[in-house]
Amino acid sequence: MSDTAIADFGLIGLAVMGQNLVLNIADHGFTVVAYNRTVEKVDRFLANEAKGKNVIGAHSVEELCRKLKRPRKIMLLVKAGKAVDDFIEQIIPHIEPGDIIIDGGNSHFPDSIRRAKYLEEKGFLFVGCGVSGGEEGARYGPSLMPGGSPAAWPHVKPIFQAICAKADSEPCCDWVGETGAGHYVKMVHNGIEYGDMQLICEAYHIMKEGLHLGSDEIADAFAEWNKGDLDSFLIEITRDIMKFKDADGTPLVEKIKDMAGQKGTGKWTAISALDLGIPVTLIGEAVFARTLSALKSERVRASKILSGPKRSGHQAEIDKTEFLSKLGQALYASKLVSYAQGFMLMREAAKEYNWNLNNAGIALMWRGGCIIRSAFLGKIKEAYTNDTKLENLLFDPFFKNAVDKAQSSWRYVISQAILMGIPIPAFSTALAFYDGYRHAKLPANLLQAQRDYFGAHTFRYLDEYTDDKHPKDRDVHINWTGHGGNVSASTYLA
Amino acid sequence: MSDTAIADFGLIGLAVMGQNLVLNIADHGFTVVAYNRTVEKVDRFLANEAKGKNVIGAHSVEELCRKLKRPRKIMLLVKAGKAVDDFIEQIIPHIEPGDIIIDGGNSHFPDSIRRAKYLEEKGFLFVGCGVSGGEEGARYGPSLMPGGSPAAWPHVKPIFQAICAKADSEPCCDWVGETGAGHYVKMVHNGIEYGDMQLICEAYHIMKEGLHLGSDEIADAFAEWNKGDLDSFLIEITRDIMKFKDADGTPLVEKIKDMAGQKGTGKWTAISALDLGIPVTLIGEAVFARTLSALKSERVRASKILSGPKRSGHQAEIDKTEFLSKLGQALYASKLVSYAQGFMLMREAAKEYNWNLNNAGIALMWRGGCIIRSAFLGKIKEAYTNDTKLENLLFDPFFKNAVDKAQSSWRYVISQAILMGIPIPAFSTALAFYDGYRHAKLPANLLQAQRDYFGAHTFRYLDEYTDDKHPKDRDVHINWTGHGGNVSASTYLA
Repeated sequence: MSDTAIADFGLIGLAVMGQNLVLNIADHGFTVVAYNRTVEKVDRFLANEAKGKNVIGAHSVEELCRKLKRPRKIMLLVKAGKAVDDFIEQIIPHIEPGDIIIDGGNSHFPDSIRRAKYLEEKGFLFVGCGVSGGEEGARYGPSLMPGGSPAAWPHVKPIFQAICAKADSEPCCDWVGETGAGHYVKMVHNGIEYGDMQLICEAYHIMKEGLHLGSDEIADAFAEWNKGDLDSFLIEITRDIMKFKDADGTPLVEKIKDMAGQKGTGKWTAISALDLGIPVTLIGEAVFARTLSALKSERVRASKILSGPKRSGHQAEIDKTEFLSKLGQALYASKLVSYAQGFMLMREAAKEYNWNLNNAGIALMWRGGCIIRSAFLGKIKEAYTNDTKLENLLFDPFFKNAVDKAQSSWRYVISQAILMGIPIPAFSTALAFYDGYRHAKLPANLLQAQRDYFGAHTFRYLDEYTDDKHPKDRDVHINWTGHGGNVSASTYLA
Repeated sequence: MSDTAIADFGLIGLAVMGQNLVLNIADHGFTVVAYNRTVEKVDRFLANEAKGKNVIGAHSVEELCRKLKRPRKIMLLVKAGKAVDDFIEQIIPHIEPGDIIIDGGNSHFPDSIRRAKYLEEKGFLFVGCGVSGGEEGARYGPSLMPGGSPAAWPHVKPIFQAICAKADSEPCCDWVGETGAGHYVKMVHNGIEYGDMQLICEAYHIMKEGLHLGSDEIADAFAEWNKGDLDSFLIEITRDIMKFKDADGTPLVEKIKDMAGQKGTGKWTAISALDLGIPVTLIGEAVFARTLSALKSERVRASKILSGPKRSGHQAEIDKTEFLSKLGQALYASKLVSYAQGFMLMREAAKEYNWNLNNAGIALMWRGGCIIRSAFLGKIKEAYTNDTKLENLLFDPFFKNAVDKAQSSWRYVISQAILMGIPIPAFSTALAFYDGYRHAKLPANLLQAQRDYFGAHTFRYLDEYTDDKHPKDRDVHINWTGHGGNVSASTYLA
């Protein structure tokens, strides 16, 4: 190792996120070497933002690698996709076995699985790290979700746990799991963020259209909720947004075009849920709600053709204070279902991809620094700490009681919104999931009969009806059209 | 052309579907040459099922091609995936420009897009054809959905329109569109089938658990519905299934395990909807409902931990006859939304993949022969025939009136099921879509504000608030935390 190897950490990609991470790491006593494809940016950064900090520049990948202590830790903060692969190829000739390449971008997890395998086969270590918290987080404390080669963690840990957000003085960064686990968990985080935002929008819609509240009253409701179980970053900023006035003194939010973008990690989460066969319905509906919002001009035309419910005057009887309290409960129960679904998805992904995921650790990583940070995630961390084998969040005594308490309000609010004609896809799918999940028997028996009727797909008997004639786990096919009399299934065994 | 070229149509793959299609084609006066990889199957088929019919055998792909009149029409009915590509490669050396390869399997549409391009570049023609109706349909009249090289259609048309199902004497087969359009439309058909089946299951669940009806009473309700707007194959077989008794005289359906499979075309449809950004929520929920049903043992545990609503005695007041009438209306309105979503998806796919889709033709193809066949599809055909530019099914006067009429029943049934604790994900997402779609303004304005707050994603002003200071289509970013006073957005233009 030459005496030029003086840096603790290397970072490639000096857009705002990259610059802020460099400054954050340098602030914590580590020497960082920074490189950017457009090298003038390196010099400008050193002469300005990084001036007087423990930051040194590199004008080539080779120089960056040469200036790093071993094992080298090189983080990429570049556009997801081809740029990541290109930089990995540029780095490889200049590093040695045991060195660590960290991808801190928004990579899709299958790419991280592939890259981990590729680099490990060459003797290098790979970390795919989800980074959340935006520019502000990167500078002063992001949520970090690193996964990949387990041998990399001891080397990366001191730096990551120093620079990350803290919640109740615990670092919001822990080892997630193997290969693409870090980016997977970050993807699910973003999916849950989609769900939380959609639920908040539906609550806002109910207050505005159902209760006829003004922006300041709605802000007050969010402010109130932010003092209780719903205490979270998203509720807090919603309070602030509702209060924010445009130059003419009217609420700015009411002037904003109701068209939301998607196509990112929310969609990936929904597709992964479909692929793995886990009913992550809340994220699915949240993504679809964004796509519906995007069809603005079509909706404007539809609004002139399609009618809503006839108003019954029923709403005049509603006690607003009481309704708001119930709405808060409904929001909380729906949100709980969304997180339960998210953890179900991660459980299945861990099985599918052979990851050892640490649920309490994941909850802690999301507890601070990221968009979905909340007091609620502290409770989730407790639930998984109290029972590391907890099968479902809804089974935890604290959350079970929370739903019991919220249940009648939840049902009331949803049924009222339905009668009022206010679209609440996320609220209602949350409750549908809860009611489906707690049913030992669902009507899929009929569905199986239909599939056997028209496609000979076969079915099985319920365990309680199995016997010598109908053994457990035997696939049965019936000639359903031969229903002239009492026909035993066993007559028609496929 | 040698004098051995005597066959009108070639078919490869003699599983039940293939055998039945061969017999169906032969019955209509065409000479078919059949080949199967395991050639003994060819001889057995000729000696048995095909005996005395216009069917000749081939013991090699080469022989099959030699025996076909030009342009050769060769249909593959083999396992989707690699087998299709393998056979295409085996066929190519033995055919000439202008000859037609038809894939009648359950191929994923991107494969059909790829194959159409590949074969057209070599001067051949490709048809990707959706086939629906199961074994019975293949033998006596399937629904056929052919797409691919338009030049192939005139040659294939006389055979396909002869053998397909007929609805009111019109053939349930028409040209769908270019490249993978046939398999795409078949995929959406299957997705809609998922939705229809889920809706029927939810109606059954409401009758059983909400109204405490027995199987025969439920059968009567389906029988009644089958005489009206809901007249369809799936309602008809549900009626029969509900009546079907096991050897002990009790309804068989109640003994069937409530675990449904998925992973096929329903999932593909939901993923395509996510990719194209179209809110096909009903199919999404139907797929997720199957995945939830599959978690049987977890649900059994959940049923012992999670509680439902406290029964209020309210249900005793319900007039069953009136409720059933409302339930039928709710089912009809939900189904209508599902089809409207399906056609929205096909509209977007046509844009994305440059297909010229014929909506009236698609409705006619689904009108008979396939699983979702129904009187209702006749009305959809009429709607698209009356107005070929109809933007949305829900805008058609007949369907608009149908929803108007159903609306109060629809809302009543859903709100009651929610209070009763019966999971109705498909019913409720259908209504949520309807209510969202008819809202000129959705609460996505708040969502855009949130995204701008934490991620500087920018937003736009609503058209009615745009002016010189805030021009239309200008992306605006605000410093939301600067809310001490009246801060104009324009101050912070990104």
